[in-house]
Amino acid sequence: MLTAVLDYVGVATFAMVSTVGARDRGLDPVSSALLATVAGVGGGTLRDLLLDRPVFWLAAPGYLYVCAGAAALVWFVGAGPRRRATLLVLDASGISAFAVVGALIAREEGVVAPVAVVMGILTATCGGILRDVLAGERAVLVRKDVYVTAALLSAVAFVVAVEAGLPRVPAAVGGAVLGTVLRVLAITLGWRMPAPPRWG
Amino acid sequence: MLTAVLDYVGVATFAMVSTVGARDRGLDPVSSALLATVAGVGGGTLRDLLLDRPVFWLAAPGYLYVCAGAAALVWFVGAGPRRRATLLVLDASGISAFAVVGALIAREEGVVAPVAVVMGILTATCGGILRDVLAGERAVLVRKDVYVTAALLSAVAFVVAVEAGLPRVPAAVGGAVLGTVLRVLAITLGWRMPAPPRWG
Amino acid sequence: MLTAVLDYVGVATFAMVSTVGARDRGLDPVSSALLATVAGVGGGTLRDLLLDRPVFWLAAPGYLYVCAGAAALVWFVGAGPRRRATLLVLDASGISAFAVVGALIAREEGVVAPVAVVMGILTATCGGILRDVLAGERAVLVRKDVYVTAALLSAVAFVVAVEAGLPRVPAAVGGAVLGTVLRVLAITLGWRMPAPPRWG
Repeated sequence: MLTAVLDYVGVATFAMVSTVGARDRGLDPVSSALLATVAGVGGGTLRDLLLDRPVFWLAAPGYLYVCAGAAALVWFVGAGPRRRATLLVLDASGISAFAVVGALIAREEGVVAPVAVVMGILTATCGGILRDVLAGERAVLVRKDVYVTAALLSAVAFVVAVEAGLPRVPAAVGGAVLGTVLRVLAITLGWRMPAPPRWG
Repeated sequence: MLTAVLDYVGVATFAMVSTVGARDRGLDPVSSALLATVAGVGGGTLRDLLLDRPVFWLAAPGYLYVCAGAAALVWFVGAGPRRRATLLVLDASGISAFAVVGALIAREEGVVAPVAVVMGILTATCGGILRDVLAGERAVLVRKDVYVTAALLSAVAFVVAVEAGLPRVPAAVGGAVLGTVLRVLAITLGWRMPAPPRWG
Repeated sequence: MLTAVLDYVGVATFAMVSTVGARDRGLDPVSSALLATVAGVGGGTLRDLLLDRPVFWLAAPGYLYVCAGAAALVWFVGAGPRRRATLLVLDASGISAFAVVGALIAREEGVVAPVAVVMGILTATCGGILRDVLAGERAVLVRKDVYVTAALLSAVAFVVAVEAGLPRVPAAVGGAVLGTVLRVLAITLGWRMPAPPRWG
């Protein structure tokens, strides 16, 4: 239940944000819907393949409907500047929700804590990275966004909280909120990740 | 048997078309053969991983020989303008064959119809997309080709025909022909996918 | 034991070489560590997914620590020109080690010899290719490096030696050394892969 709610939040927001980008580049509705699906379910699909679980959307076509619906909505109706600000916050919450759900599922599958954190990061970032790669977009990794770091924070906060004995629901919500706040603050205040030091 | 025939058609044409592109960019024979293999078996591999079936070429090395042979043939012998026209038609039939076989296998694995359509699209398009990405080529998704849409048509036509009670073989052949005709017509007549409407 | 040693050699060198590239492009430490992890464990992960084995680093977080540690070391301490020459040799040995270990594991899983060679090539090259793609780097495949060919040589040498009755350890070491020597010679002497012949 908790993972399904977090999953739907992440899938829907990723599909919408992806379609804003696809639309800006003039993509047609079918390709936009395919990219929205890749962005929406890609990270969780990788997580399920790595953990050798059934891929989550195979038995739950609702996820695909959400992707197609979100893509159609944004493609036909559009998203002005005001809606974009909302989408950025939604995107940040999607990243954080996926980071938590990835770590949570990995822990349930008996994976040790540090590996669960990595699984959270992959779940959160791989959908968006894959979409950028497929669309020929400059990968988010080489921008100095607080992106992977927000996923890292959410996953670590959740895993540490659960290890410390906190119940799952508050740990998950807390982890997701922390990562969201970090990313929204970073975008609002223009925080950038540090560049490497000069060679000694 | 039906799936094997469709699979070999798709694998061979994708490997040949891929090597035409690799050759144009001056790639060496070994890298060309690797790209031909990725293009040929990539989509079906993703399909098998998602459906948790044994990857189809593991127990059937014939697929790899076809990829290597097709790559060697095109790399050493070449393909003039006339052969390219033939290859474009073959490529269109490969996409459509893969879309049908992806949907067919997904249905056999007990997947619901809409998810089977998505599986058909992924099987048909991911090999080519992956090859473009690995070769640093401009991804087919951002061109306005009737590409994903041809795969969509083939997969939908096949699934609907089978649901309507048609036997598998005519449904498969019909679906594959429909997508092929659409894509060949689109290339011949210069049809482009629609751009998004301006923001309201 | 043999596969673990070869795996650790490959993972550590790939993570370090990847971070040299990430650092040159100004990436932040967290993204650099993610790319180092993708480069280090990506090829072996694909191999395990294709062979339907448990992904090797899930139960052995040591691989992730090696990736993170290698990334941190190179990112903070750096790598001058002299260290880069060392890294190039290490990289060549990593490619060859991965090619051997991929073929070896595939054979242990009962895969026929030609497919095992392909599995060796994929294990050796996909981590680096994936990293290039994610980082928006020009893919190694379109440079005329002796890269895929070195992996091919190592995998073929190992498989042929084992088929000929040689024990596994000398066959593995011999295969890995052959590929390493080929790639280091190619870089030192400026060997390039052949361009395709002109169209007949």
